[in-house]
Amino acid sequence: MTAETEGSLDEDAPPAGVAFEEDAPPAPGTPLRDREQQVLDRIARARRRRPVVREERITLAHGSGGKATQTLVQAVFLEAFRNPRLAPLEDGATLALGGARTAFTTDAFVVSPLFFPGGDIGDLAVNGTVNDLAMCGARPAYLSAGFILEEGFPVADLRRIAASMAAAAAAAGVEIVTGDTKVVQRGKADGCYVTTAGVGLLERPVELSAARARPGDAVIVSGPIGEHGAAIMLARGDFGIEAPIVSDTAPLHGIVAALLDDLPPGGVRALRDATRGGVATILNEVAVASGVCVVAEEEALPVRPEVTGVCELLGIDPLYVACEGRFVAVVDGQHAQRAVEALRGHPLGAGAAVIGTVRDDPPGLVLLRTAFGGTRIVDLLVGDPLPRIC
Amino acid sequence: MTAETEGSLDEDAPPAGVAFEEDAPPAPGTPLRDREQQVLDRIARARRRRPVVREERITLAHGSGGKATQTLVQAVFLEAFRNPRLAPLEDGATLALGGARTAFTTDAFVVSPLFFPGGDIGDLAVNGTVNDLAMCGARPAYLSAGFILEEGFPVADLRRIAASMAAAAAAAGVEIVTGDTKVVQRGKADGCYVTTAGVGLLERPVELSAARARPGDAVIVSGPIGEHGAAIMLARGDFGIEAPIVSDTAPLHGIVAALLDDLPPGGVRALRDATRGGVATILNEVAVASGVCVVAEEEALPVRPEVTGVCELLGIDPLYVACEGRFVAVVDGQHAQRAVEALRGHPLGAGAAVIGTVRDDPPGLVLLRTAFGGTRIVDLLVGDPLPRIC
Repeated sequence: MTAETEGSLDEDAPPAGVAFEEDAPPAPGTPLRDREQQVLDRIARARRRRPVVREERITLAHGSGGKATQTLVQAVFLEAFRNPRLAPLEDGATLALGGARTAFTTDAFVVSPLFFPGGDIGDLAVNGTVNDLAMCGARPAYLSAGFILEEGFPVADLRRIAASMAAAAAAAGVEIVTGDTKVVQRGKADGCYVTTAGVGLLERPVELSAARARPGDAVIVSGPIGEHGAAIMLARGDFGIEAPIVSDTAPLHGIVAALLDDLPPGGVRALRDATRGGVATILNEVAVASGVCVVAEEEALPVRPEVTGVCELLGIDPLYVACEGRFVAVVDGQHAQRAVEALRGHPLGAGAAVIGTVRDDPPGLVLLRTAFGGTRIVDLLVGDPLPRIC
Repeated sequence: MTAETEGSLDEDAPPAGVAFEEDAPPAPGTPLRDREQQVLDRIARARRRRPVVREERITLAHGSGGKATQTLVQAVFLEAFRNPRLAPLEDGATLALGGARTAFTTDAFVVSPLFFPGGDIGDLAVNGTVNDLAMCGARPAYLSAGFILEEGFPVADLRRIAASMAAAAAAAGVEIVTGDTKVVQRGKADGCYVTTAGVGLLERPVELSAARARPGDAVIVSGPIGEHGAAIMLARGDFGIEAPIVSDTAPLHGIVAALLDDLPPGGVRALRDATRGGVATILNEVAVASGVCVVAEEEALPVRPEVTGVCELLGIDPLYVACEGRFVAVVDGQHAQRAVEALRGHPLGAGAAVIGTVRDDPPGLVLLRTAFGGTRIVDLLVGDPLPRIC
C-alpha cells in the first residue's frame, strides 16, 4: 500500500484502466501531448491530497485491496496507530527483537467458498502468511491461528481445514504454535474465518521495500497470473462456466530464497505477492512508494489461455485478478535475465518473465503498453469485482 | 487448557458445580466416604479418555472456554498441528527466535456489544493479547491486528475502535505494527471482529506453566472477579437490570512484572488471566496440568457486591464469569503473603487475595469449601451461559 492516495470516492481521481485519450475532458483542438499532461496533473493533484474516507459505512470495496482499502487503511488505521514500523505498509513489519532481526505479519481469511480447486481456506491462510514473511525476505518460522466459527459449522469441515493447515505448515517448514477459537451465533459469520499471524527470521542482509525501485530496474512476475482469483470465481458457480483452473496457492519462501541467493546484494529491490487487486495493484504500490513510473508490456504478461478466456467472458482484466502463489520482483535492470533464470530454476517459477521496466516519469503512475500499440494508465481498482477472494 | 479431558457430551462426566452428595447415584446405605470415592473414580475414568468431539456441528459451547472448547482444541487442532510448542496449550508459545527468548500469542475477539461500560472490542483486543504475553512472563512488544468487517458497518464506529486500540497500545507500551482488513457481505459477520496477535520478549529467567503447581503452593487472584462478564451481560440489556459495573479490561504486564521481581526465582509457578470460563476454568487447568488438587475457599474470593448481586439474579456463579484484567497466580506457599503484598502495591492489584491452596489429592480436581462449611467439585462448564463475552 502507498503513503499517499486519494479518497476512494474522489471524483477528481482517474477511473481505473481508462485510456489517456478518453479520460481528460479536452478543449477542442488541444494537442494530444497537452491533454495527456492535463490527466497527469489531475492525478498528481489527487495523490497529494490527504486520504479521506467519505463513505459513512463500510462497503465491499473497502475489502478489495484497491483504492478504497488503501484509503481506509491510511485514514483510519495508519492515522490511529501511526508508528515508523507500520507506516511503510509493507507485507509485514521488520522488527529488532532481542538482537534478532525478525519479520511479523498477519492476514484475515474470509474466502468463499471455503473449499475450491487447488486448495481451501486452511492452506490459503498458512501460505498467505508464509508469503508475507517471504516478501520481507524472512524465513517463516512460527504461525498463530485464530478461528471464528459459525454455530452449526460442520466439525468434519473444520477437521479438513485443520488437516490442510497442518499439511501446508509442514510443506512450508513452519509450526502453528498458538491459537484461539471463538464461536458466533448462526448468521453472524459464514462458516469459518481464519486469521493467521506469523513471525520469521531475517537471515540475509536484505532490505526490501516497495519504496526502493529506481529508474532502470526491471519488473518480473514469478509465473502466470490470475489463477487463484479465476479458480474462486468458477468455484462459486455463479457464471455457469467450467474451465480447468486451480488456485496457485503455494508457499513462496523457497523460490524467494533462490532469487535472493542468486543475485548480488541489493540486486533485489522489492518483493510483493500479488494477492487482492492482483499485479496491477502491486505495480501501483511500487510506483507511488518509489515515486517512479512502471511501464508494463501487455504482451509480456504470462497468463494461461484458460484464465484469459474466463476473464474475457466475465469482463475482468487478469492484471487485477488475485494470485496466491505468484509475486512481483523489482530487480536491478542489469540482473533481470539472471533473476528470471533463477526463478525458472525453481518448480514454482517455470513461467517467470520480465513484464516491465521502471523509469522516472511520470512519477507514481503505471502505464501499460497494449498489444495494439497503445498506452493506458493502470490505476487501482475503485470497486471490488471479486469480493472474498482470500 | 489441559492435556487430557473428556468428550464434551460424555454422559459419564460429572456436571459442573454439582455437590458431591448429589452427583453419585449412591446405593442405599453407602457410607459418605465411599460415595465420594465413586464420584472421584468416575471423574478419573472420564479424564483418562482420549478427547473426542461427538457433535457433528459446532455449537456455542465450543466457544465457551469450557469442556467443549478444550475437547475441540485437543481433538481437532492439537491433533492436526501437534508440536512441542503448541502442546502445553499455555496462553502463548515460548519460542527461541534467532537467539532471543520470545513469546507469541493470538486471540480472536467477537464480543457483543462492541462498546460496553469500561471498554470496547478495541482495547479488549489489545489488552487481551498483551495479557497473554504477560502470562508467559514476557514484556509485550509488538501487536498485529486483523479486522473482519461487515458491509454496512459505520466507519465512525471503526474509527472509535481504532482510537481505542491506539490508546490501549500506548498505555501498554506496545506498537501495532502490521494488520489486515477484510470485508464480508451484510449478514456474514456482526459489525466488526478483531484478531490480534502479539510478540514479546522474555527478559526474566522465568519458567511459568500451569503444569508447575505443586502441593503446598498458594493460589492468588489479583483482584475482584467477574466484572468484565457482568458488565457485558448488563450491556446487552436482555435482563432489564442496571448496576454500576464496568469491565475490568486492563493490561497486566506491569503488575506481573511487580510480582515476578518481588518473589525469589521460581517462586511464581503459573500465571493465567481469567478470561472465558473465569477463575473456575483456570483452577481446573492448573489442577489437571499439574496433577494436583486445588482447594479454593469461597469466603476468600474477592467479588464486588454488585457482581454478586447480578450473578445471583441471573443464576450464574461468579467463579465462571470472565475477567479481562485479573489473573490467577500459583506461587510457592511460603511466599504467599509477600506475593499478595507485591500485587496490592500495584494500582491493578488492590483487591488481591489468597483464594486457595494446592494439595496432592485427589489429583486433577478443584474443590470449593463453601461458606456453609460444605465442599463441592468445581468442574469446567459444559455449556456456555455467556456467549461472545470477548
